[in-house]
Amino acid sequence: MAGSAAWGFVKLVLENDVSKQRVEIYFDFTSPYGYLGSELVEGLAERCGLDVEWRPFLLGAAFKVAGTGPFMNVPLKGDYAKRDLERTAREHGIPFTLCDVFALKQVAASRAVTWTRRDAPEKTADLVHAIYRFAFVEGGNFSEAETVADLAAGVGLDRDSALSAMNDPAIKDRLREDVEAAVDRGVFGSPVFFFGEEPFWGVDHMEQLERWIARGGW
Amino acid sequence: MAGSAAWGFVKLVLENDVSKQRVEIYFDFTSPYGYLGSELVEGLAERCGLDVEWRPFLLGAAFKVAGTGPFMNVPLKGDYAKRDLERTAREHGIPFTLCDVFALKQVAASRAVTWTRRDAPEKTADLVHAIYRFAFVEGGNFSEAETVADLAAGVGLDRDSALSAMNDPAIKDRLREDVEAAVDRGVFGSPVFFFGEEPFWGVDHMEQLERWIARGGW
Repeated sequence: MAGSAAWGFVKLVLENDVSKQRVEIYFDFTSPYGYLGSELVEGLAERCGLDVEWRPFLLGAAFKVAGTGPFMNVPLKGDYAKRDLERTAREHGIPFTLCDVFALKQVAASRAVTWTRRDAPEKTADLVHAIYRFAFVEGGNFSEAETVADLAAGVGLDRDSALSAMNDPAIKDRLREDVEAAVDRGVFGSPVFFFGEEPFWGVDHMEQLERWIARGGW
Repeated sequence: MAGSAAWGFVKLVLENDVSKQRVEIYFDFTSPYGYLGSELVEGLAERCGLDVEWRPFLLGAAFKVAGTGPFMNVPLKGDYAKRDLERTAREHGIPFTLCDVFALKQVAASRAVTWTRRDAPEKTADLVHAIYRFAFVEGGNFSEAETVADLAAGVGLDRDSALSAMNDPAIKDRLREDVEAAVDRGVFGSPVFFFGEEPFWGVDHMEQLERWIARGGW
């Protein structure tokens, strides 16, 4: 019993340690700011010596709790956002075309990433980039599972396994639970970053996040 | 006529030149992010060799056009904002207490600043700081014109002139027109900064704004 308690303690320390060695990014595939965040987070992680934890999120779940909606629909704010997105993309040299985000459905893509996170984590970043770039660089629409399966195959995943995974009730449940857990954790936008339990919302908070990591908070 | 046209041209050049030599800040006195912006904008302006143009704004006018409301009321977002405000204030060493912003009315204060901008521009920054700090450092409520007049007197303005100005129809009209012009220009939040015709929304965009100024855009 004493041995088991000690092991529990060691495990706790290890888990805490591990959780400090990563930056988490919550992102919605229909979110253009999420796309910019996905292009910038690995550079930040590399400079800080961290791993990236990719967490697909469904903004609709947050909108339901918060009573809000997509900012692109909001007069004044939507116009500003378009300008801000293009300006931020230009500053960082990120290829970017604002597609019709309201034509995009993100559930199949989010399920595919939920699957790689479980079964092929080494492919997760590639798949996230392939899906996002398909929409925000090439102007494609990834709403259909068949399209996502093509993109998965393009990064070396098995096409049929990807298709099955998107229809697998266990994957569907897992994504639903992940999204609920995210909302419980306070996620309400895209991208939202976590370092430990400290949340940072938006691409425009990434510099502060990086200083926070470097200084260990303040 | 030729002389007049030439003078018109010279005037245009001078005006454009002058407009490049300043950074504008639109702020609502009930906005805690506006307060943080007011504490940070002069440092930015000094580093960039610019003047600050203080522009009182009434968020209600933007909410009417955009169909939005104060984010502090929004579930999830409000909790995050509180944390973010305190974290940003700590990072920059800005004294900050989140008061009950819904108890604040900003019209009298905004009229007083509209008056100093016209009649005592050298006092505008002092008055803005006095009003904001009264609420967000001392926890005071500046809703009443009498309170604003006390604050005006505290920075060396004539108390009776301040009171008269807040009741002066010309000042009331001027503020209303300024706010309408701001909405026409696309202002929808607080703080919003302009450098020339380039808008930057939020304290979290001030670093990008500073790079934009330094590089002359991109």
